[in-house]
Amino acid sequence: MIHELPVRVYYEDTDAGGVVYHANHLKFGERGRTEFLRATGFQNRNLHETLGVIFVVRHIEIDYLKTAHLDDMLVLETTISSLKNTSFTMHQALFRVDKNGAKEAQISDMKVALVCVDTKDYKPVRVPEEVKDVFQKYVE
Amino acid sequence: MIHELPVRVYYEDTDAGGVVYHANHLKFGERGRTEFLRATGFQNRNLHETLGVIFVVRHIEIDYLKTAHLDDMLVLETTISSLKNTSFTMHQALFRVDKNGAKEAQISDMKVALVCVDTKDYKPVRVPEEVKDVFQKYVE
Amino acid sequence: MIHELPVRVYYEDTDAGGVVYHANHLKFGERGRTEFLRATGFQNRNLHETLGVIFVVRHIEIDYLKTAHLDDMLVLETTISSLKNTSFTMHQALFRVDKNGAKEAQISDMKVALVCVDTKDYKPVRVPEEVKDVFQKYVE
Amino acid sequence: MIHELPVRVYYEDTDAGGVVYHANHLKFGERGRTEFLRATGFQNRNLHETLGVIFVVRHIEIDYLKTAHLDDMLVLETTISSLKNTSFTMHQALFRVDKNGAKEAQISDMKVALVCVDTKDYKPVRVPEEVKDVFQKYVE
Repeated sequence: MIHELPVRVYYEDTDAGGVVYHANHLKFGERGRTEFLRATGFQNRNLHETLGVIFVVRHIEIDYLKTAHLDDMLVLETTISSLKNTSFTMHQALFRVDKNGAKEAQISDMKVALVCVDTKDYKPVRVPEEVKDVFQKYVE
Repeated sequence: MIHELPVRVYYEDTDAGGVVYHANHLKFGERGRTEFLRATGFQNRNLHETLGVIFVVRHIEIDYLKTAHLDDMLVLETTISSLKNTSFTMHQALFRVDKNGAKEAQISDMKVALVCVDTKDYKPVRVPEEVKDVFQKYVE
Repeated sequence: MIHELPVRVYYEDTDAGGVVYHANHLKFGERGRTEFLRATGFQNRNLHETLGVIFVVRHIEIDYLKTAHLDDMLVLETTISSLKNTSFTMHQALFRVDKNGAKEAQISDMKVALVCVDTKDYKPVRVPEEVKDVFQKYVE
Repeated sequence: MIHELPVRVYYEDTDAGGVVYHANHLKFGERGRTEFLRATGFQNRNLHETLGVIFVVRHIEIDYLKTAHLDDMLVLETTISSLKNTSFTMHQALFRVDKNGAKEAQISDMKVALVCVDTKDYKPVRVPEEVKDVFQKYVE
């Protein structure tokens, strides 16, 4: 399975080069991961309050492939590229789409490694089984 | 008429006080004005390319009424509070809504004065009649 | 007295219009107020931990006068425009400066009303006398 | 040689987790690279106007090692980790420093690959010799 989030480009996202500012691709990434989690039923607050864990970003790799511009309609695809005991890696591909939602070009490609830590002392702990079960469906 | 834009709060919007960072209310405002324009058929690019004008923010007044938090669902209401020859003022009210979309509390209240300028020398010009006609429907 | 903060414009501050994004003037404002407080010896942490209060932004009015651009050197002047029992208003004027630091043009003008609240229940309380004494020196 | 940029943490940089928002490390990175270029005499505008090239971010890898917090004083160290014909990689290490400027802990570690493109058609071109000569001094 692939999680998809539509993203519209506003002035706030752009820079004086006329393109989406490079750091803002990571903001889009966080929106995508949050909505991915919400779609699986494990949004930030639930993870924290019910399961006593949070997912912390440990490492990001991003390739900038094409530029995105003001008013562009984008779609961010999120999948799981690897799933370990206490950590997992998400793969996020950002595309520009046309009026009909068809992909025109890939804008960037991100790998985001997250660690599952408990909310008391921020030490790595196992990803909860119920979370792992759902994530499994999104493994590439 | 009132234009409504749903806004979800992500980590990118918050600060270490645990609330939506005060400057980011203005980002939400710009999203709301852009989608308002798109809804009326006059999005940024069209205004620029077809009508040779852009709307420039000249003055903002904002009241911070309540705090908004991570994962909150908000709705931003945009109307026109005054419409003059070369300028107009938009009124934007940000609310927190519950799961059913019912308004729970007003978060902030913004008045944004914009000037219509031509794209050649950035001098104030009359708001195009076709834009004014549509705006008229959103006057409070 | 006037507090001055130099501000350099980076890509992160700009938008596709080629200018400093309007909401980012408020970010500069917060930097200026923070450094103003630090200069008076009452930085955020001290206010919170020692005096049990924080200053919360309640209202902002901003006039956009000229545009600022990538690589511009700016200076933000901060003063107190009014000082009441439980609140005060700061005046922040943003200027572009030349290579020698001489002011060339005013970019924006901000009035920021802050309320002093206690850190337990966020109710308005009197601005601590020692803070008021120092602020008095910066009243316009 | 190592280029050093001091960075103060403001509310704008933080998120509701109480730490510097992960995407904002990249903003600090851009500030550091810009000031590095300015220190070498080749700031953005000069590169563009005199040499007809700009440096475009193609790939970023970042490790998040420790968290940074509101009011922290940081220092960002920038060096060149590899220098090729049409591209180069910058290494940026972010540290928290104490009151005396001594390094306390490394916060993050970034590798940023940039491509030299000409400003007409954005095709990769050779890094100008005069730039390469200066960069050579900062190679690790």
